[in-house]
Amino acid sequence: MKKLFAEFFGTFWLVFGGCGSAVFAAGYPDLGIGFVGVALAFGLTVLTMAYAVGHISGGHFNPAVSLGLWAGGKFEAKDLVGYIVAQLIGAIAAAGALYLILTNKSDFVTIGGFAANGYGDLSPDGYSMTAALITEFLLTMFFLLIILGSINSRAPKGFAPIAIGLGLTLIHLISIPITNTSVNPARSTSQALFAGGEFTGQLWLFWVAPIAGAILAGFIHKALFDKE
Amino acid sequence: MKKLFAEFFGTFWLVFGGCGSAVFAAGYPDLGIGFVGVALAFGLTVLTMAYAVGHISGGHFNPAVSLGLWAGGKFEAKDLVGYIVAQLIGAIAAAGALYLILTNKSDFVTIGGFAANGYGDLSPDGYSMTAALITEFLLTMFFLLIILGSINSRAPKGFAPIAIGLGLTLIHLISIPITNTSVNPARSTSQALFAGGEFTGQLWLFWVAPIAGAILAGFIHKALFDKE
Amino acid sequence: MKKLFAEFFGTFWLVFGGCGSAVFAAGYPDLGIGFVGVALAFGLTVLTMAYAVGHISGGHFNPAVSLGLWAGGKFEAKDLVGYIVAQLIGAIAAAGALYLILTNKSDFVTIGGFAANGYGDLSPDGYSMTAALITEFLLTMFFLLIILGSINSRAPKGFAPIAIGLGLTLIHLISIPITNTSVNPARSTSQALFAGGEFTGQLWLFWVAPIAGAILAGFIHKALFDKE
Amino acid sequence: MKKLFAEFFGTFWLVFGGCGSAVFAAGYPDLGIGFVGVALAFGLTVLTMAYAVGHISGGHFNPAVSLGLWAGGKFEAKDLVGYIVAQLIGAIAAAGALYLILTNKSDFVTIGGFAANGYGDLSPDGYSMTAALITEFLLTMFFLLIILGSINSRAPKGFAPIAIGLGLTLIHLISIPITNTSVNPARSTSQALFAGGEFTGQLWLFWVAPIAGAILAGFIHKALFDKE
Repeated sequence: MKKLFAEFFGTFWLVFGGCGSAVFAAGYPDLGIGFVGVALAFGLTVLTMAYAVGHISGGHFNPAVSLGLWAGGKFEAKDLVGYIVAQLIGAIAAAGALYLILTNKSDFVTIGGFAANGYGDLSPDGYSMTAALITEFLLTMFFLLIILGSINSRAPKGFAPIAIGLGLTLIHLISIPITNTSVNPARSTSQALFAGGEFTGQLWLFWVAPIAGAILAGFIHKALFDKE
Repeated sequence: MKKLFAEFFGTFWLVFGGCGSAVFAAGYPDLGIGFVGVALAFGLTVLTMAYAVGHISGGHFNPAVSLGLWAGGKFEAKDLVGYIVAQLIGAIAAAGALYLILTNKSDFVTIGGFAANGYGDLSPDGYSMTAALITEFLLTMFFLLIILGSINSRAPKGFAPIAIGLGLTLIHLISIPITNTSVNPARSTSQALFAGGEFTGQLWLFWVAPIAGAILAGFIHKALFDKE
Repeated sequence: MKKLFAEFFGTFWLVFGGCGSAVFAAGYPDLGIGFVGVALAFGLTVLTMAYAVGHISGGHFNPAVSLGLWAGGKFEAKDLVGYIVAQLIGAIAAAGALYLILTNKSDFVTIGGFAANGYGDLSPDGYSMTAALITEFLLTMFFLLIILGSINSRAPKGFAPIAIGLGLTLIHLISIPITNTSVNPARSTSQALFAGGEFTGQLWLFWVAPIAGAILAGFIHKALFDKE
Repeated sequence: MKKLFAEFFGTFWLVFGGCGSAVFAAGYPDLGIGFVGVALAFGLTVLTMAYAVGHISGGHFNPAVSLGLWAGGKFEAKDLVGYIVAQLIGAIAAAGALYLILTNKSDFVTIGGFAANGYGDLSPDGYSMTAALITEFLLTMFFLLIILGSINSRAPKGFAPIAIGLGLTLIHLISIPITNTSVNPARSTSQALFAGGEFTGQLWLFWVAPIAGAILAGFIHKALFDKE
């Protein structure tokens, strides 16, 4: 049970910090943090919580990560449902908190797209569904290769949260213009619920592509890199 | 006594570096560091001083942190007053040093709001008192969850200053537009004293919300995450 | 064989992440990541993959690094060809993936210079061939001094990927305006193939200068710093 | 002798990387790295070289650091002159390399102020000599407190280059607008030699203030923090 609380708090923090920085601070006139700041924020949510509760739950905070670790033989199938449910609840609770804060802004009108993910007309820079599929698939695959490699018993001890957190920063540096960057179905779901409209209709891609990439990475790591 | 000196120097550095970067460098034309730079600066004050004097005093530099560690059972009540007084003196001394430097600028007119925290009319982007309360409460709660988790005996050794420092960076990436980011009553007090006016009248929130969040985090950590 | 897969994936990630961030995100209006973001991205590709597969292949991801480590007595000549071929295949495959994504952008017209390296007319800020030679030579020399020093048995254990990755970030912070920053013949080759035209004609410099600098660093490290 | 080579290369890298990023990349139109990028670059020169050659020479790269470590009882007086001479030669050689590259830019006219330090009319944002004295004194004092604290036997092992390097980044985030940030007489000397004119006349301050601050920090650390 404490593991599920750890995943709840960790995923809450990922969405509150990552999406929150995007919603509140990215576009502030002149001094805003831009995509660099948002990328840093997403990565630091994972870096910080992986040090804080990684020794309790493993620090997944992402259904694709749980599934990729399962495919790589590092996580038991029987724990998958509990973890994913805790992650979804944490993500949605965080989106609710962001909504509550944002609607208490003096000039609030609409949340617009919140920090939802999208492709085609909803891609920040107009990338097609094909581009989105390739990007989310490849990025989540590499995210899991980084995770599985850096937690391997032969990798330096204690550094995995740095590699994994900054890996998520890197992923955002590459792909915010393409899909607003998901690689995390819980994060995408939480935002689509509030953004509504067309965003909900595109949510399937941000489950399918990240999970497919994550599972492939699990198999690659097991086949190529896990044994001497 | 050496612990109190460590807290004095650490909190001086937090205010001098964090607020100083905001006052001197954030809005420099074209090349200024913006909110990303200020967020990085605040985090690095804690990262650097936690490595430098963390082995002496624990490296709190923040009354909310001392109280949260006490609530989590990691700090003794009898040391609270000394620590908080040393933190306040350090913060105010740093604000004085910033004032001295700023008034030696050729085109100096007024310090304006300094780097003070505020809500409503004094929120950088117009967030209400409710938004400020929620934000400061939640962010300090997570700050303490990061601190208590990363200093736990089961977390990787030596990495806590990285997690904690970059956690403070993340907190600033999210919330500078909302309250100018406090999560630290000593930091807020030091700036309000110099900024004066309405800022002093809003100072209560930056004691109440961070401390409430920190104490709740202490209880959560003790109840959920501290024991096997 | 697993080493060659590690080099393939690592160099794919370096080009996909580093060049990808430049192509997709650097110039996004107002919120783009700029050269700071691209510099961070390149460094983080190496930091992340060095933690993930460094314990398998050593984590070179760069022909100049393989040759510099050979010159420094840390890599065997018989492995050079395999590594360099795997790096080139990985880099070119990544460039292909970037091409595929970019051409699926709604307003796609031309890839222009992609993220290719150049001097003279093709230097981002108009630096001559001489400036490019000096810059690429010196930067790769220091890159290898950092690598050879930080993997030395007397350096702190486990930190080398941080030093090396952030060293590559630093190198990009200095020199993107000069040559678009190579210090890596595989990265340069992958982009020149797609950018074509004059870029192909300048590719020699981004093999010659980095490799010369890397080999000199290998000799310097062996002569000056490797023995007590 | 190998220690002096280590200091030569380290200080070369500090000036080449830190000042080079300022000269080449800070003000590039739209995509330039700004003061955040320059601050990061300076810090990373020290982080990278401290991991690379810190186990050889201690990784000072700065006369004020050598003197502060001497005052703190961590460095022998008999080695001071050799270290400082090696640092000055490295810094000046790097400035020469920067000059060579910069003059090979197609539209080169003048190096202007290079990356020299200054106050009053030569302060980037118009801060007086008094402001410069206070700032350089305080910042170097804290820089040495960070160095002496993080290399202390009771601090976590291996992390000092991170604390020290990112400490230098923080120092630049605060003070580039005030003095263009020195805290390092070798760095200041190397730039003043090339910038010439009034900059040479102001060089005294960037020896006096950093060294005074560093020596005070040495005494503070020895008196307060070094013994149980």
